[in-house]
Amino acid sequence: MKAIPFTNVTINDRFWSPRLMTNSEKTIPHELEQCRITGRISNFAKAAGLMDGNFEGIFFNDSDVHKLIEAASYTLHTHPNPEWEEKLNEVIDTIANSQQEDGYLNSYFTLVEPEKRWQNLGMMHELYCAGHLIEAGVAHYQAAGKDKLLQVACRFADLIDNTFGPGKRDGLPGHQGIELALVKLARVTSEKRYMALSEYFVTTRGQSPHVFEKELQNPDLPGGLGAYQHHYTRDGKYEGTYSQAHLPLKDQKECVGHAVRAMYLYAGAADIANETGDDEIKGALHTLWQNVEKRLYITGGVGPSGHNEGFTQDYELPNFSAYAETCASIGLIFWAHRMFLLNGVSRYMDVLETALYNGALSGVSLDGTGFFYQNPLASRGGRERSPWFGCACCPPNIARLFGSLGEYIYAQSEDDIWVNLYVGGSASTTITSDISLKLTQKTDYPWSGDVEITVMPDKPTSFTLNLRIPGWCKEYTISVNGEELSNPATSLGYINIQRQWKSGDVVDLKMDMPVDRIYAHPHVRDNLGRSALQRGPLLYCFEDIDNSQGAFETLSLSDNATINPVYNSDLLNGVTILKGTGLVYDVSDWDNQLYLSKPNTNKIDITAIPYYAWSNRGAGQMAVWVL
Amino acid sequence: MKAIPFTNVTINDRFWSPRLMTNSEKTIPHELEQCRITGRISNFAKAAGLMDGNFEGIFFNDSDVHKLIEAASYTLHTHPNPEWEEKLNEVIDTIANSQQEDGYLNSYFTLVEPEKRWQNLGMMHELYCAGHLIEAGVAHYQAAGKDKLLQVACRFADLIDNTFGPGKRDGLPGHQGIELALVKLARVTSEKRYMALSEYFVTTRGQSPHVFEKELQNPDLPGGLGAYQHHYTRDGKYEGTYSQAHLPLKDQKECVGHAVRAMYLYAGAADIANETGDDEIKGALHTLWQNVEKRLYITGGVGPSGHNEGFTQDYELPNFSAYAETCASIGLIFWAHRMFLLNGVSRYMDVLETALYNGALSGVSLDGTGFFYQNPLASRGGRERSPWFGCACCPPNIARLFGSLGEYIYAQSEDDIWVNLYVGGSASTTITSDISLKLTQKTDYPWSGDVEITVMPDKPTSFTLNLRIPGWCKEYTISVNGEELSNPATSLGYINIQRQWKSGDVVDLKMDMPVDRIYAHPHVRDNLGRSALQRGPLLYCFEDIDNSQGAFETLSLSDNATINPVYNSDLLNGVTILKGTGLVYDVSDWDNQLYLSKPNTNKIDITAIPYYAWSNRGAGQMAVWVL
Repeated sequence: MKAIPFTNVTINDRFWSPRLMTNSEKTIPHELEQCRITGRISNFAKAAGLMDGNFEGIFFNDSDVHKLIEAASYTLHTHPNPEWEEKLNEVIDTIANSQQEDGYLNSYFTLVEPEKRWQNLGMMHELYCAGHLIEAGVAHYQAAGKDKLLQVACRFADLIDNTFGPGKRDGLPGHQGIELALVKLARVTSEKRYMALSEYFVTTRGQSPHVFEKELQNPDLPGGLGAYQHHYTRDGKYEGTYSQAHLPLKDQKECVGHAVRAMYLYAGAADIANETGDDEIKGALHTLWQNVEKRLYITGGVGPSGHNEGFTQDYELPNFSAYAETCASIGLIFWAHRMFLLNGVSRYMDVLETALYNGALSGVSLDGTGFFYQNPLASRGGRERSPWFGCACCPPNIARLFGSLGEYIYAQSEDDIWVNLYVGGSASTTITSDISLKLTQKTDYPWSGDVEITVMPDKPTSFTLNLRIPGWCKEYTISVNGEELSNPATSLGYINIQRQWKSGDVVDLKMDMPVDRIYAHPHVRDNLGRSALQRGPLLYCFEDIDNSQGAFETLSLSDNATINPVYNSDLLNGVTILKGTGLVYDVSDWDNQLYLSKPNTNKIDITAIPYYAWSNRGAGQMAVWVL
Repeated sequence: MKAIPFTNVTINDRFWSPRLMTNSEKTIPHELEQCRITGRISNFAKAAGLMDGNFEGIFFNDSDVHKLIEAASYTLHTHPNPEWEEKLNEVIDTIANSQQEDGYLNSYFTLVEPEKRWQNLGMMHELYCAGHLIEAGVAHYQAAGKDKLLQVACRFADLIDNTFGPGKRDGLPGHQGIELALVKLARVTSEKRYMALSEYFVTTRGQSPHVFEKELQNPDLPGGLGAYQHHYTRDGKYEGTYSQAHLPLKDQKECVGHAVRAMYLYAGAADIANETGDDEIKGALHTLWQNVEKRLYITGGVGPSGHNEGFTQDYELPNFSAYAETCASIGLIFWAHRMFLLNGVSRYMDVLETALYNGALSGVSLDGTGFFYQNPLASRGGRERSPWFGCACCPPNIARLFGSLGEYIYAQSEDDIWVNLYVGGSASTTITSDISLKLTQKTDYPWSGDVEITVMPDKPTSFTLNLRIPGWCKEYTISVNGEELSNPATSLGYINIQRQWKSGDVVDLKMDMPVDRIYAHPHVRDNLGRSALQRGPLLYCFEDIDNSQGAFETLSLSDNATINPVYNSDLLNGVTILKGTGLVYDVSDWDNQLYLSKPNTNKIDITAIPYYAWSNRGAGQMAVWVL
């Protein structure tokens, strides 16, 4: 099973098309400008000797530019723009010029500590930046058909491959990401060395004594030791959990440490498992997935703690202080997608969809130029998206996710097509050896659960069309060419329609999309006595701007509250809001008393908006979980 | 208005009599033994030169012995015991022997830093220990009729009075308590100097620059600077809030800092206001009381934070981490009692009663030899009372409170009697100039709201009998000699029965005592969506030992839950428990899911016990506020 690549998919619907346009026309230019004014691009020019000056910013800032190139490459494919292509090529040229003779490419080390390459892999993100360069090179090649950056990436990957591995030097990325990048590179170049290097990084991690532990003995350690040391030692002893280097992956049972690193590692490991069939890795990934299901915000956010930007313990999911980094939700999408490709089970796509429509989508403002690094589930006010960050990993990450959205919609094997996301548009592929197949989707998802899929093989042919039954969907009907299937076959969370398809066959999926009240596992302490509203894949929240003064703190939904969806095209670029009545305490009732035996409640009209759209109308209060 | 003193009151009922017996026979001997084995008593012997050795323990440990003498003196009156009296006299002799020639008495300074008296008043508790010595001297004189310790106290008070005050040295207690002690001393000795010294301590506090600030400039500061410094400085600058020395009392508007210190200060200030009629102090106390009503646990606990053992901000009343020191509830009782005496309003007695039956009473185990320093409102297990503490302020404080309980039941003025607490027993006093009056109370309070009061003046005489209507009481009937008063006069929260009383007149008060569900002000974040059960003055809690496995975390009372009181004489020395049904989530229902749209709930039988009785059957889980 493989994804139908973004290059073969178009998107054309009411929900995503405007967002992808904003991504192309607003977000990516805005981010390029931020990369310029913060010295991120001139760092490469300086490293290339094209201009004078010192390195500016944080030592891993190269990665932001690489990610932005990846994002821009995708959008050049979906939203061609020659002027933009020119600008992108200039940046790529500058990066290429900064590559050292031996293939090394990292503007921080080249400019600041040229003698100290590879000495502090645990903390200094050289391999992480390399990974993003590789992903950029692959994307630019796939999307724009140009191989300049791919060649740069290959030269650097070759250097890394010649440096690290069995019989060579010990080395692993402190911040993962290169694992999945090397898999992409191996696939696009058909070079097995890159796959082997990725496998080495995945399987060697957690050796004892660990390469990161040995590095710490260097009294002249380069770079950012000060900032990271406390994550690598406890009571003076080396401790690997922060970067998932405490145990070999095959023995890891809990999601620990920095959440983005964890997600990238697990995603890369799933790629390797898919490639090699390694049962130990598959087993570990299964166990880790079971565990992440106990550490997952209802938004698809992971990593509740700001302390380690990461995981804590099962069921510890505080709302106000939720870290839930945008990048971690994106990483979860990468992991979940690969788990689906490995197992064919729809639950992975449920989590992907949840993260996509909620915890990742909340990371960018509706106008495309404001970003959340953290995505809390409640706020007492004061939180607004920023145009940029000193550590700016999230903005280009969301841009590249959206740019490559097409990749997540469909998958196929020889005789099967999977429709995973309900997104209007089309896909083209080849099925049953040599039949060209086009599919079109018409839907107003996520506002509606109705989906019309037209199947257009160039000749009639038999294959199975698998339509995902989302976890949120309890009732649906499915018909082919107007004839309802009374008892459709289902497996692994998909409706399986096996038949001989001819061009113009129409499949109608109608999913009931009621408003659901969701309750959290009782071990999630912050949510005891609370519920959240969800409709389809969208989680809802209450902002004080829509609800009466004072309602925020005490808003409760009575047990039999009727809550209705209403589409409002004027609000928040068009959203289905939820309207109903709720109860709030009459605070004045308390007067100067702290405790009352029969407090009055007031009935008020309440309005919930999709969580992704919060904080687009000022820095007010917000709550997902209400009483 | 004044309290009818404990010497004129007897207690004879089912609730308090056994507790006071335990206090006399178990708690006080246990505490004396603890004082012995921890060197608290031998510190005095060493300071007296009666034995060799170094000071042992914490620098303010003298105060524990003083408080214990105060407690034991009360119980010698209520529970005479010649053997015990002998032991007490020995301790008093040792303390008296440790008094220095000039009257100074503090075993720490005498043994450890004799040259550094009075140099670190802010932190070293000399005046605090002096206050407890004075209270012990007064109690021993009042209860046992012996003036030896009173003379010791007077000599020390004279030294303090000669040392500090207008035209003498600046000096104030870092830990208050001496203020109310000096008022007691002034009243028992009729020496106005002591009252004036107390007034000086109350009214001078908060001067700028403050005496504590000036002390900090001493590079050779005695004693405990290390432990306390962070409470007295912020960003390197002096900050007086920890000990309520940030502003003159008359300008203080919020309860701040260390809660016990605050309570003792406000209690002493109320004494002074009562004595002097000072309107500025009265106004400040009114404002501070309004404020404490926003910072008060439903148990009568104050001071939520362990950081400063004290106050934080309005409505910040976390349950699990509640500090709510036993001593702070006792201090609140002192303050509330004096506020009642100053204002005649029953609300103060409501708070006193709440603290007495809940937050203070929880401070001691049913067997009288285990103590809580902190009184949380919820526990995930592991909390048990200790036989003693390094800082052992609470155990003797609870012993002296119980020993002097009689003092809080009645008050009188020339033509009025107030019955404030419903406690079986009797009181004797003189009313309307020269009429001897005896009152008896029969009641099974707090288990029942029925109270029978027999009034026995030695001649018929007119006065007003004022019966407190507790804040919890919504319905009651009152009759005199069997005849119901259809519309009794009430004022300030009392039923006022003005008539000519003759011996044998019987007043019957019947207060409905339903089970109430109490809700906290919506600004108390931890209690949103939760309620607590109360019946009469008793707050209830749920312990996991009485409730099904797993019920603790998710227990909810449905809106129309019927909860019935049942007296159980075999449980916890006899308690009325509350029984009913509640709902808990079926945790197994969740299986490996974090979020469910329709979780099942199980109906379970639930049992609540009085909060004061929790943690007498092992260190299980407990919750006051449930869903």
